[in-house]
Amino acid sequence: MSLLIVGTMAFDALETPFGKVDRIIGGSATYAAWAASYFTQPIKQVSIIGGDFPKEEIAALEARGVEFEGVDVIEDGKSFFWSGRYHMDMNTRDSLITDLNVLAQFDPKIPESYQDCDYVMLGNLVPAVQMKVLDQLKHKPKLVIMDTMNFWMDIAMDELKQVLTRVDLLMVNDSEARQLSGEYSLVKAAKKIQAMGPKFLIIKKGEHGALLFYGDKIFSSPALPLEEVFDPTGAGDTFAGGFIGYLSRTDDISFENMKAAVVIGSAMASFCVEKFGPIRMKELTPADLENRLGDFVTLMNVNIEIALAV
Amino acid sequence: MSLLIVGTMAFDALETPFGKVDRIIGGSATYAAWAASYFTQPIKQVSIIGGDFPKEEIAALEARGVEFEGVDVIEDGKSFFWSGRYHMDMNTRDSLITDLNVLAQFDPKIPESYQDCDYVMLGNLVPAVQMKVLDQLKHKPKLVIMDTMNFWMDIAMDELKQVLTRVDLLMVNDSEARQLSGEYSLVKAAKKIQAMGPKFLIIKKGEHGALLFYGDKIFSSPALPLEEVFDPTGAGDTFAGGFIGYLSRTDDISFENMKAAVVIGSAMASFCVEKFGPIRMKELTPADLENRLGDFVTLMNVNIEIALAV
Repeated sequence: MSLLIVGTMAFDALETPFGKVDRIIGGSATYAAWAASYFTQPIKQVSIIGGDFPKEEIAALEARGVEFEGVDVIEDGKSFFWSGRYHMDMNTRDSLITDLNVLAQFDPKIPESYQDCDYVMLGNLVPAVQMKVLDQLKHKPKLVIMDTMNFWMDIAMDELKQVLTRVDLLMVNDSEARQLSGEYSLVKAAKKIQAMGPKFLIIKKGEHGALLFYGDKIFSSPALPLEEVFDPTGAGDTFAGGFIGYLSRTDDISFENMKAAVVIGSAMASFCVEKFGPIRMKELTPADLENRLGDFVTLMNVNIEIALAV
Repeated sequence: MSLLIVGTMAFDALETPFGKVDRIIGGSATYAAWAASYFTQPIKQVSIIGGDFPKEEIAALEARGVEFEGVDVIEDGKSFFWSGRYHMDMNTRDSLITDLNVLAQFDPKIPESYQDCDYVMLGNLVPAVQMKVLDQLKHKPKLVIMDTMNFWMDIAMDELKQVLTRVDLLMVNDSEARQLSGEYSLVKAAKKIQAMGPKFLIIKKGEHGALLFYGDKIFSSPALPLEEVFDPTGAGDTFAGGFIGYLSRTDDISFENMKAAVVIGSAMASFCVEKFGPIRMKELTPADLENRLGDFVTLMNVNIEIALAV
């Protein structure tokens, strides 16, 4: 099935306890497309970039089945730039610079050739832009998933809630789930968020894994314990890309298959954080993926025979 | 197989965001014995209490197969008393009062009738007292597990490390694992701690579950997401009690069976936190346990068919 991804394509400057890079490609749609491309192709990309976005990066994505008809190229503009520094626990970071550049004029246009997409990922963006994408779809996709962040909850909660009524699945981190719902308990938060629209909810917990909620059902995927998290940038986007890439490939949106997709997403995120930026996402082999999924099965697999004394 | 548990039996005063109790029984050995008793009996208890420890609590434990020959009763003394207040996230707490009382004179004596124990749990205590228990065992148990806390790392690290060389499994929380090893990464911390003695290591992460390490193998058990954690007191001790109670019952210390025991321990902890103190641990039915373990299987169970696009 075809997959549509909308999000940012950008440059990042990153500083972690393990090192720094001044300028590396990034952006939610870049990470998500790389991750999804291991499972499904073509990927119909919707984004906006400046003339400075490297031609070889575009060529590398095209070689992975990523289509650029929906990517607006502003030749005399500069791509979105973000700079951040991570703290030792890698769960908190300071944004140092956010230069919107061409992103400020992002007005997504969905090409006719994208209208066959059954799977849609709305990357983290202004809610009004996410809504514009949904408004242009001529038929209802099988699955629309959405990422967002606390920033939009602070300044555009009403628009965010409008988008929520039109998506099937929301993915946020634990603090965002708490902010959105006003509930500390993640189980209570999930119920309130599901009542806002999305039937499915994924709460990402970084090194502690992710929870998938559907009705009263809950699935918990661990994150792979790693010796070192080198750079967490893109972990959430590669999680999302792997998740929806796998669903698009298997074309099965049952809760059972979504559980598998959550583990696939967790595996892709575990690769992403091993090197700076999207470097690791570009070099994965089928053997890497199979071995890593094997690690997850070992990590999660258990047989319990209940034996009570009473 | 017989199980020996050494630890505190105490009174607690507890305050959580959901309410407070002024005086309820507690102590690591109390919680652990209640949890273990659902899987294995008899349980050979080693502790010290004052004349104020309620006769009906002793009778209730005896009815669950808990033997008191190794429990020193100081008729004119007062039982250990701890008072604490939990914060909203339930992972942090303030100790308000710690009255050692009879615990200050704890000099454990292992009765002859306890010498057949193949499974031994050293609850959180002064390392020197844990060592005294090991010194009195006439044959090597199949499995010795040990709990400890940051306090002993601060004031008795050398003695703690001595005990570590003589135990098979250590269980600590994530911040304690970091303090003990000096490593932030839990994978690196695990390797350093395993090199100190224990082949097996369990790192408890509260609402994020627990990790079991053995050699290069890792197993991750989720915690059950709960609407409300009413009172976290005793969660770690009931985890330990369920864990070793199950191992003692099944008499199988393979990594595979330890995985199951970790899930059993997590299930017992999930019950414990539902009510104040050990109240919930006293009223569980076989159906409660079977249903809860079923919840864990749903929470963890996944089938993944790898389908790559490349």
